[in-house]
Amino acid sequence: MEFEALSSAELSTYLRGVPSLYSLLNEPDELDITEVGDGNLNYVYFATNTRAPDRSVVVKQAPPFLRLVGKTWPLTRHRMEREVAALRRFGALCPAHVPRVYHADSELFLVVMQRLSSHRILRQGLMDGVVYPRLAGHLSTYLAHTLFYGSDLYLASDVKKQAVSAAVNTELCRITEDLVFTWPFEDHPSNVYSPAFARAEIERLWQSPALRVEVGEMKWSFMNDAETLLHGDLHTGSIMVNEDETYVIDPEFAFYGPMGFDIGAVLANLLLAWFSRAWHDRHAEPSGDAPSYGDWLLAQAAAIWNGFASEFATLWREHESRRGSHFIGGDRGGACAEAFRARFIERLFEQSLGFAGCKMIRRIVGMAKVADITSIADNALRATVEVRALRCAEQLLLRRRQLRSIEDVVALARDIASTRPALA
Amino acid sequence: MEFEALSSAELSTYLRGVPSLYSLLNEPDELDITEVGDGNLNYVYFATNTRAPDRSVVVKQAPPFLRLVGKTWPLTRHRMEREVAALRRFGALCPAHVPRVYHADSELFLVVMQRLSSHRILRQGLMDGVVYPRLAGHLSTYLAHTLFYGSDLYLASDVKKQAVSAAVNTELCRITEDLVFTWPFEDHPSNVYSPAFARAEIERLWQSPALRVEVGEMKWSFMNDAETLLHGDLHTGSIMVNEDETYVIDPEFAFYGPMGFDIGAVLANLLLAWFSRAWHDRHAEPSGDAPSYGDWLLAQAAAIWNGFASEFATLWREHESRRGSHFIGGDRGGACAEAFRARFIERLFEQSLGFAGCKMIRRIVGMAKVADITSIADNALRATVEVRALRCAEQLLLRRRQLRSIEDVVALARDIASTRPALA
Repeated sequence: MEFEALSSAELSTYLRGVPSLYSLLNEPDELDITEVGDGNLNYVYFATNTRAPDRSVVVKQAPPFLRLVGKTWPLTRHRMEREVAALRRFGALCPAHVPRVYHADSELFLVVMQRLSSHRILRQGLMDGVVYPRLAGHLSTYLAHTLFYGSDLYLASDVKKQAVSAAVNTELCRITEDLVFTWPFEDHPSNVYSPAFARAEIERLWQSPALRVEVGEMKWSFMNDAETLLHGDLHTGSIMVNEDETYVIDPEFAFYGPMGFDIGAVLANLLLAWFSRAWHDRHAEPSGDAPSYGDWLLAQAAAIWNGFASEFATLWREHESRRGSHFIGGDRGGACAEAFRARFIERLFEQSLGFAGCKMIRRIVGMAKVADITSIADNALRATVEVRALRCAEQLLLRRRQLRSIEDVVALARDIASTRPALA
Repeated sequence: MEFEALSSAELSTYLRGVPSLYSLLNEPDELDITEVGDGNLNYVYFATNTRAPDRSVVVKQAPPFLRLVGKTWPLTRHRMEREVAALRRFGALCPAHVPRVYHADSELFLVVMQRLSSHRILRQGLMDGVVYPRLAGHLSTYLAHTLFYGSDLYLASDVKKQAVSAAVNTELCRITEDLVFTWPFEDHPSNVYSPAFARAEIERLWQSPALRVEVGEMKWSFMNDAETLLHGDLHTGSIMVNEDETYVIDPEFAFYGPMGFDIGAVLANLLLAWFSRAWHDRHAEPSGDAPSYGDWLLAQAAAIWNGFASEFATLWREHESRRGSHFIGGDRGGACAEAFRARFIERLFEQSLGFAGCKMIRRIVGMAKVADITSIADNALRATVEVRALRCAEQLLLRRRQLRSIEDVVALARDIASTRPALA
């Protein structure tokens, strides 16, 4: 049967027919249904009690295709099961940063969730230059908890292996394999170039064995390293914020993969936001010696990584201390376990930078763009920003083993923006 | 119900009742049942037509415990399903080097296989100083085919992910996690030390942060990197040979893991065989300038790695050429795909050396020993051999990124044997 999106009347009747929702929405006679319509994959609605506007929920339904493209790109509706399972798992680990699931329907492939009505999409906030004082701390905590508690550092070996199997997410992983790791590195018909895009820059990367080797390594890692349950698409459009709170939404790409993939996504999108300040700050007063919004953005990238690394190590240390044993086995003095922890985090940093590089490139060359950059109305400036982002991504991939700290990464980004290419 | 091993009469009746076996065994009135009795995990029997001794099969049955230890170490009988699936898969990929499965019974957890009556266990052959002229070529081929065709380099992404889930082998992986990567690196009650063992040598390793970090990395890789369907226990006791043929048996540890684990197991066991020549060559005539059996052993290690690397690259190249695309995506000149292939094999070499190091250490310190070394009747000499093997393993782990070729590894082993410690 051909899929038909639910009509407002159908959805309203459905939601009022679920006792827990009927009660949560304060026994509505009628529901106001608004399609949000910004989903790449799914249909998303707000459903609000017409007489009690504070009683409102989000409804998300997976059609049997990729919504961004349409029915020509079929996609299993079972992806909704992955998303619901991930929301529940992450919600249990990080209740403060994951929307509550109120109801899930495995026949309609539909989930009803907490509405974040005073929050907005982080990407929009960053474009508008809004400072979120608690953002970095919240994301560090979210990343440390979700990445640690899904891994062999915490879970019993058998529980972890069952979790890996349960989280297999073939079709959505395939989208990432193609759209992030493969098509942007070839002259693929799905690639989209901005009007003044300097194509020679990407053609140079396509033909650079050194760069292609690193991207190949990241693709291999993405496909093989089942380290923890990832969000799988943790860009700034998957984060909702206000001054006090931070929520991570939309984990339909969740699967067991390399930890650095989620961290890299956050770093990549902060760097893209930063490179795009050349446009978004165009009306800003010169800040003199005071820190600019761009400075704040880079400081967030640094604070997120450093905060994550410290919190992750603490969770790990505390867990091993409680359990009285180390991942590496007995260690009388503790120096060996600490050395392994340091190496682990160092490797994770390298991995995160590699994934950040891939994520930046796909947003410049691939099909799915970021508004930070597509909203740049000046084509020449947009092309300049794109070249800078590409060069930064290239250096992240090539030099990820030499960059020793996130401060090195910040310095690299600043250097690229200030010297190459000169702004028109 | 308490498990009881099948009596000879029961087994004979059972086998004659399976039509395909009855026919294969030439319609026997009676079967001669002999227990082989060298299994660590399982009961193994030869079943032979009393009147036609050339009609004979191997029967293997999994009891609900680890046979080496007994009923105090319970183990799922479903491991037999993993073994049968792996035998069939590897047999399809490498029919010349994997025994044929004639019959599998998922209720009795029993498999009936081709009997290799003119072959012996490779470890025994090596102890006796037998040269197998085709061994290296066969093992290169077996490794290249099994490791390549199970991986994302060959399989479609969705097929591979389903294969990973289907091959989850929790309990047997747990044995490796404990017995190879954890217990040998702590003062664990399961460790067994030889009478004159220089305990200070292993205590030094336990307290070496540098070494423990590398072992931790290998354990993490073993638990997380689902690269291909591995044999999982590919030591020289899992290989049967004669002058013309080589068979790989006993894949009950099969699971999706890092490619280097199987390669490392082969290299580790050849190195252990080589270090033990100090005993097994004790009655040999000095060979003067002619190559000794030890030289042949090291040459096999080199030939297996080099042959594997070349065959693996060829399979990969031919596959990409047939399919008209590369793992890394489009590559007009081909230089990028070749550069990635070179890096991949370089990384695999490092990984193999790391696993080889872990496998050597566990055979010296851990519960399960190798006959090459346990058969050394001179306690002082045995301890010397063990120290050499430990030092070699340590260097493999610490220097795996610096050792650029298998010839470097051979030189390292020779250096350790000739200089440290001086033989008594």
